[in-house]
Amino acid sequence: MTSTASTNDQYGLLKTIDSPSDLRKLPRERLKTLADQLRAYVLDSVSKTGGHLSSNLGTVELTVALHYVFNTPQDRLVWDVGHQTYPHKILTGRRDQMHSLRQFGGISGFPLRSESEYDTFGTAHSSTSISAAFGMAQAAAIKGENRWAVAIIGDGAMTAGMAFEALNNAGVADKGRLLVILNDNDMSISPPVGALNRYLAQLMSGQFYAAAKNVGKTVLKPVPPLFELAKRFEQQAKGMVVPATLFEKFGFNYVGPIDGHDLDSLIPTLENLRHLEGPQFLHVVTKKGHGYKRAEADPIAYHGPSKFDPAVGIVKPSTPPKQTFTQVFGRWLCDMAEQDQKLIGITPAMREGSGMVEFHQRFPTRYYDVGIAEQHAVTFAGGMATEGLKPVVAIYSTFLQRAYDQLIHDVALQNLPVVFALDRAGLVGADGATHAGAYDIPFVRCIPNMAMACPADERECRQLLSSAYAQNHPVCVRYPRGAGAGVEPLASLDALPYGKGEIRRQRHDVAQAEQTGTQPPRTAILAFGTLLYPALTAGEALNATVANMRWVKPLDVALLREIALQHDVLVTVEEGAIQGGAGSAVLEALQQEGLPRPVLQLGLDDVFIAHGDPAHLLALQGLDAAGIEASVRRFWAQQA
Amino acid sequence: MTSTASTNDQYGLLKTIDSPSDLRKLPRERLKTLADQLRAYVLDSVSKTGGHLSSNLGTVELTVALHYVFNTPQDRLVWDVGHQTYPHKILTGRRDQMHSLRQFGGISGFPLRSESEYDTFGTAHSSTSISAAFGMAQAAAIKGENRWAVAIIGDGAMTAGMAFEALNNAGVADKGRLLVILNDNDMSISPPVGALNRYLAQLMSGQFYAAAKNVGKTVLKPVPPLFELAKRFEQQAKGMVVPATLFEKFGFNYVGPIDGHDLDSLIPTLENLRHLEGPQFLHVVTKKGHGYKRAEADPIAYHGPSKFDPAVGIVKPSTPPKQTFTQVFGRWLCDMAEQDQKLIGITPAMREGSGMVEFHQRFPTRYYDVGIAEQHAVTFAGGMATEGLKPVVAIYSTFLQRAYDQLIHDVALQNLPVVFALDRAGLVGADGATHAGAYDIPFVRCIPNMAMACPADERECRQLLSSAYAQNHPVCVRYPRGAGAGVEPLASLDALPYGKGEIRRQRHDVAQAEQTGTQPPRTAILAFGTLLYPALTAGEALNATVANMRWVKPLDVALLREIALQHDVLVTVEEGAIQGGAGSAVLEALQQEGLPRPVLQLGLDDVFIAHGDPAHLLALQGLDAAGIEASVRRFWAQQA
Repeated sequence: MTSTASTNDQYGLLKTIDSPSDLRKLPRERLKTLADQLRAYVLDSVSKTGGHLSSNLGTVELTVALHYVFNTPQDRLVWDVGHQTYPHKILTGRRDQMHSLRQFGGISGFPLRSESEYDTFGTAHSSTSISAAFGMAQAAAIKGENRWAVAIIGDGAMTAGMAFEALNNAGVADKGRLLVILNDNDMSISPPVGALNRYLAQLMSGQFYAAAKNVGKTVLKPVPPLFELAKRFEQQAKGMVVPATLFEKFGFNYVGPIDGHDLDSLIPTLENLRHLEGPQFLHVVTKKGHGYKRAEADPIAYHGPSKFDPAVGIVKPSTPPKQTFTQVFGRWLCDMAEQDQKLIGITPAMREGSGMVEFHQRFPTRYYDVGIAEQHAVTFAGGMATEGLKPVVAIYSTFLQRAYDQLIHDVALQNLPVVFALDRAGLVGADGATHAGAYDIPFVRCIPNMAMACPADERECRQLLSSAYAQNHPVCVRYPRGAGAGVEPLASLDALPYGKGEIRRQRHDVAQAEQTGTQPPRTAILAFGTLLYPALTAGEALNATVANMRWVKPLDVALLREIALQHDVLVTVEEGAIQGGAGSAVLEALQQEGLPRPVLQLGLDDVFIAHGDPAHLLALQGLDAAGIEASVRRFWAQQA
Repeated sequence: MTSTASTNDQYGLLKTIDSPSDLRKLPRERLKTLADQLRAYVLDSVSKTGGHLSSNLGTVELTVALHYVFNTPQDRLVWDVGHQTYPHKILTGRRDQMHSLRQFGGISGFPLRSESEYDTFGTAHSSTSISAAFGMAQAAAIKGENRWAVAIIGDGAMTAGMAFEALNNAGVADKGRLLVILNDNDMSISPPVGALNRYLAQLMSGQFYAAAKNVGKTVLKPVPPLFELAKRFEQQAKGMVVPATLFEKFGFNYVGPIDGHDLDSLIPTLENLRHLEGPQFLHVVTKKGHGYKRAEADPIAYHGPSKFDPAVGIVKPSTPPKQTFTQVFGRWLCDMAEQDQKLIGITPAMREGSGMVEFHQRFPTRYYDVGIAEQHAVTFAGGMATEGLKPVVAIYSTFLQRAYDQLIHDVALQNLPVVFALDRAGLVGADGATHAGAYDIPFVRCIPNMAMACPADERECRQLLSSAYAQNHPVCVRYPRGAGAGVEPLASLDALPYGKGEIRRQRHDVAQAEQTGTQPPRTAILAFGTLLYPALTAGEALNATVANMRWVKPLDVALLREIALQHDVLVTVEEGAIQGGAGSAVLEALQQEGLPRPVLQLGLDDVFIAHGDPAHLLALQGLDAAGIEASVRRFWAQQA
């Protein structure tokens, strides 16, 4: 009976694995079965919850092999980017929690130290793994602990400068046990970006070796008999030319490339590497979406799908979804590019996410995907701006953190006209704390020469992008993930006035006759960005004036002054950190104007906010209409 | 007579060069004389003004050659870091302004777009030049302009990830005329840091070539007659093996290494390169301090000397200078390391500047110079912290901007106990706007889990470093360049209480009898950091309470509350940007406590502040005692 049940259960073997130590007890020959079940389980889970798929299907065998060969969690695995860790989560005791993935209160879509001792380092932003793992390896050596630290990093992540900084440092280490695994899986995504990807493609396709052979031919040509030797070289080149890679130049012992879906390659190779000294580099080739034909065929579509039926695949929704801010930006970019030959569009490897696919197709000579290289993206834009072009850098708020110095030192200090389109400003939902664009207002606002607009809806987004583009200095336009209030953008490219807000709702004086009891203080709500809409609802309930401030910097001080003179208390509302945020800009301006007022600052709490449904998270932060209203009423009570 | 005068004038030829077009009219054979005069002029100038010396003596011939071969300013030169541009300044019309170098109102020590059309891109922070020049080259191609963009970058700067991001992007460019010149000059500084430097050393010393030969030997050994061939290879290897460098793997045409002090190598090579297609990479070897024996012998000492007599060299001052905050940090680091085996010291290539020489010598196994790699430095520290070690990252405030995302994503989000010793917080003097540590308070304060202390003097600096070290979460301690009030640190490693400030001066009530006319409002000055001392002086003159707040985050709200209840107006003082700064933290807290008060925020204006004497600059910003007093009196007048 047991045997029959086990046979019938498609996850029979997988369900016996509650931790990697269970895995390590399995005989080698059962690992293939385990990997197959694990792959099916990943597909099944993700099709029910949504989440990252292609990358996780690609790391199934690698995950099994790593936990089989290494003594986790004693040995440390650091997964770069981390969205490919579902197989790792399933094998490390979280199999039965996969239904809660990326949902409020459920497990994270990324490794999280607080979630599992097997998640040794939280990742999500790209290219941090080698630095972190090298730190762990050095720490182990210093403490006299004989453990490995393994960084698993994709070829895309390898293009970021940070990965090179880490290689450069780690390659000369005289102690510690560090293994870097390059999970090379971008071959199916075209076009590959940057010299490194091209180089890796050459390595794999054998062209590198062929090129070496050709060089040999050129050199040897004057001496014909030596062609024979060139052939011998050809035989031996696998041992000589290929390993002399870029990574060897950085001091690593390079091994590879090997098939990352073949446990019979992976396990012996990893077992051998475990016994070597010095920094090790293993080049593994995997296929995104491996084992699920639809994802193999279209790894981009299956990169991060919503729920779907695996038997049917992703179905295009019958009713078109609401237009997102990303789409509004993409549309504006094309329209403005058509009107102005000077416009240049720049993305650090976020063509799809930033809504630039159409721009790329229509204006290929003015489109730059610079790779995962935010620092370079910003200074590159600065260089273009010095020549009179008008670069627009499309970048998620959270990734602009990667180019903060370049924003200050290369763009703002020289007052160069670069437009920064900051997508994913505020809370981002399922991706959680690592991706929250919560800090851009404070970190941009303190920089001289910078300006920052925050559109309240789709129409304003287009208008304020035009306003930003019209300036002769750097301007950020921040807008959130997804759709907004649904206000259709106008066809024109007309700009809104620079640095000017507007009153959207005027409180009305309550006639003396109607008054019963104490009147609440005359209240104005100053909304920065899309929270204008819940603020308007709250304003109705509260009989408060509601201003749509539109610009964080320069602040509309004339409007603020007018409001301050006519109201007893002010309320600021923003989807961002309160410390140093737009509300603080209001406080500063009120002081400078000599109009100190009681101000209630509403925004994001000073904590990292985990993943969940964005609307739910905003409500928990008191930033829906009901929350704003309740906060204002509490504030009134305190004033009384 | 003219002839005699010219002969007698040691700068006769140089004085005929008012712009590069004058230079380009010279016959080739006169360039050596010009270079010699230029070198002498640089030495003469810097010995009178102070400034960067070694690096400028190393770029004399390269500068002459570049302006001779390229049609500047039509062709663009972008000098990485930019402190090696004195020869460039002298040849581009600023010869007679060199006496004003780095002084208030004088010319900058770095390239500045506002200073000259030959300064095509402002630089100062490392490793931006390739990105900027690539942007210019692409812009020229898009605009159909046939001009070159040339980035001149040192080997140290090449270790920063940003340079690799740029190489990775530029190496695959299908248009534009980009030349990257690697000015390899760090051979004399030991130890070279990182794999790249080691690799460059191999390239230059011929070991690379020798290694290639050895590989050949290994492969060929089984076939003895082929040793003969290996010898042939040896002859031809210069054409084959050497150019197959790392940089060729990135898609560049690599040429070099050539002698960067030999105009007969430089000029023909540059002239050849000008006619090639595709991204070009020239490897030039120069010697820091070249032509001045003292600087050649000790390029670190002569990196950035104060005024000195060239005939005598740098003389150690007879009276020891005041202890700097940097030295206080260095002392604390050693003392704490002695007490706690877990302490790790990390610097991104700023051993001397950050005061870590002694620590390096005494605790070599716990010292990490990771190269110019701030991003890696911070995440590397994070990795170590996960293993229970206690990393201290010594980093200039302005350079922490380079690792902002890592601070948020890798350290703060995981709440890892890393101490950040932020040197050069506030204005830095002669280095000017690029190096100002003006933004750290706003950009750190908005991050959850972070804390930030700002010692008022040397003694507190040591105490607050101990306080920071005792916490189980990340803490920044910010302190300015140079010396402070001169309060001797105590020998102990005792900490000050976490998050607590103190009253340093209590205003006294003026007895009714003594009152004549209107009383000024009861005033408290809240000082954050070293401006406590001028605030105390102003407080005496104003009869104001003066608080030493010590912590920006967490703010001492209890103390603030007490102060607010006893005073009519508050004044905040900080050496940093006002927007979102410590004063804004006070405004926010007063609102949360329901104690709105008129607050005067004193700090740095919302502009980039140019170079000059720090005390003078602070006075111009109204941040000396007289300025603080005057601002408070104006504020009083507005309140009346």
